[in-house]
Amino acid sequence: MASKREAKSASTRRGGRIKIQDVARVAQVSLSTVSGVLNEKSNVSPETRLRVLDVIAQLGYTPNLFASNLARRRTKLIGIIVSDLLNPFFAEAAKALDAQAREHGYETFLTSTDFIPEKQTAAVRQMLSLRVAGIAMMTSENDPEAFFLLKSSGTPAVYLDNNHASDNIGTVHVDKRHGMFVAVQHLLKLGHRRILLIKNSLPDVMAPPMLSHMERQLGFEEALHGYSAKQIDVHIIDEPGEPASAGCTAIEKALQQYKFTAVVAINDLVALGVFRGLQAAGLSIPQDVSVVGFDNTYLCQFLHPPLTTVATPREDLARQVLRMLFGYIDGDNVVEEQALPADIVIRESTAKPRTK
Amino acid sequence: MASKREAKSASTRRGGRIKIQDVARVAQVSLSTVSGVLNEKSNVSPETRLRVLDVIAQLGYTPNLFASNLARRRTKLIGIIVSDLLNPFFAEAAKALDAQAREHGYETFLTSTDFIPEKQTAAVRQMLSLRVAGIAMMTSENDPEAFFLLKSSGTPAVYLDNNHASDNIGTVHVDKRHGMFVAVQHLLKLGHRRILLIKNSLPDVMAPPMLSHMERQLGFEEALHGYSAKQIDVHIIDEPGEPASAGCTAIEKALQQYKFTAVVAINDLVALGVFRGLQAAGLSIPQDVSVVGFDNTYLCQFLHPPLTTVATPREDLARQVLRMLFGYIDGDNVVEEQALPADIVIRESTAKPRTK
Repeated sequence: MASKREAKSASTRRGGRIKIQDVARVAQVSLSTVSGVLNEKSNVSPETRLRVLDVIAQLGYTPNLFASNLARRRTKLIGIIVSDLLNPFFAEAAKALDAQAREHGYETFLTSTDFIPEKQTAAVRQMLSLRVAGIAMMTSENDPEAFFLLKSSGTPAVYLDNNHASDNIGTVHVDKRHGMFVAVQHLLKLGHRRILLIKNSLPDVMAPPMLSHMERQLGFEEALHGYSAKQIDVHIIDEPGEPASAGCTAIEKALQQYKFTAVVAINDLVALGVFRGLQAAGLSIPQDVSVVGFDNTYLCQFLHPPLTTVATPREDLARQVLRMLFGYIDGDNVVEEQALPADIVIRESTAKPRTK
Repeated sequence: MASKREAKSASTRRGGRIKIQDVARVAQVSLSTVSGVLNEKSNVSPETRLRVLDVIAQLGYTPNLFASNLARRRTKLIGIIVSDLLNPFFAEAAKALDAQAREHGYETFLTSTDFIPEKQTAAVRQMLSLRVAGIAMMTSENDPEAFFLLKSSGTPAVYLDNNHASDNIGTVHVDKRHGMFVAVQHLLKLGHRRILLIKNSLPDVMAPPMLSHMERQLGFEEALHGYSAKQIDVHIIDEPGEPASAGCTAIEKALQQYKFTAVVAINDLVALGVFRGLQAAGLSIPQDVSVVGFDNTYLCQFLHPPLTTVATPREDLARQVLRMLFGYIDGDNVVEEQALPADIVIRESTAKPRTK
């Protein structure tokens, strides 16, 4: 062990950085074999592979992989930017993107903005500096400076919902407005006339409203169009903070102020808190109050009762985002917008109201 | 617009790549101002900042940020590798690491392995090629080749639980064994004698067992030590697949085969499925069956009833991991292992058994 250390420091003193040639010499293999090991080529035998790795470890050789990436100019990496790691919608979208990108020989990495526009810019800056091949901007919030950076870099990017388009930058829309419209119609058809919408805006009142939440509210209002104030009783609570906590708090407040037979939560995580708030107050779902979520995350089927929600198709979303990104990477220059449907998934959290 | 395009293609034809000097000339500012805008220095006025960004976009200038990273050799980036994005434990750990790393002027990015050792190696390879300053290996599974790569690269790394130590590589242990020991003792003290442990191993039977799950099982068995087979009735179900689905399926199977008054789930996500399985069968928690989870993720407090679980401290974990990483980055060469406690959080999902 001591002699290895000496060998290492001697060679470090002698010639500075350990080179790939040193590894080849000590391992008694050709340069192309060392390169084959480093690049995971399959034509190196397991024994040789282990010997080379052992020498690499002994000498402390750091393969300068980035040099070859730099030569190719772009990495085979897709950067994914999401708003909130803890919301399963984003985690599921990132997971679908990663799985599908790997099928195309790309790897992905992920950064979260916590809905803060400045962090979106920082994430884009970071990813550009790492020379990603493309960026999937799967965020609810929107930052013009991040778009500016992307546009000026020429790096392919695809946005979720936010209406950004330029050369090499496209958008995939999920029709959340229609999804919410259908969800509220479902409640109306069941006979609900006292409906609560629980939103979860950012705590920062100066922050611009999130487009994806605005679209949901538009769909909500559209479904109620044609009903007079006498026919229908609607309240909107906008509770900031962590989504599940916000849903729970909003229910505590609403129970003191309003009568309602149905709750529409702006997303599934808010619905999780709504469940807790209602159940803690001794109310049964859906016998006392019906609940609708939004996103159809994995949580829905494990809640008790399973949650009626609006499905925003994750696999299709990933497929379209990557199709557009790879198109741009291959040199397509068509500015493109792609629309995906959103539709209701009826489970057991909605039923006819006991009282009207 | 046409003239801008012409200007751009003319200059591209003339001299190839747009340079920072071109931006400074067109924007009529100094080089250091352009550099200030690119590096987000605050001494540039908003008007100038926008003008420079506008020129950057017009000319299609790509700031070669990596060149300066390369000069510094290391980026100010920490790579985080987790096993499963959809398990809130990992998402919360990544979030805590990101928040604390930012306080030290570092950014993070995240990759998930889905418990597949080969993906761990690929993730390490990717991060080394991007010249991260350090790697937080927050995975349940373990891959010797990834460790080999890390060791040979000299890049600082800190593992969660897995016993890897070398120059620049440390480990933070969370005492899951003790945590589980205390959780089972809690059930025993309440009077439970028919206990079910639900594990969630990898579907691949050839995969090595996950150390963190083994430790939990050791703690489980330790707590039962001293009880004879007559005194206590214990069953273990190991159900592979998505954790929540696995928990639900395991309960369906167990209800047909065993009598039990308490369930210990290997993690909170499995407990989510256990809740659903029990409630779908018409059983009440904790009146009919007590349930204990593991990890104390945000889900626990929103389940109905709130879930008794074992807390593995996320903020402390992130703090220790980063302390060690930054130490290595600063040149400390102490091989270090750090232990963190895990303890029970009693909520409403556990109570005395109705029947013994």
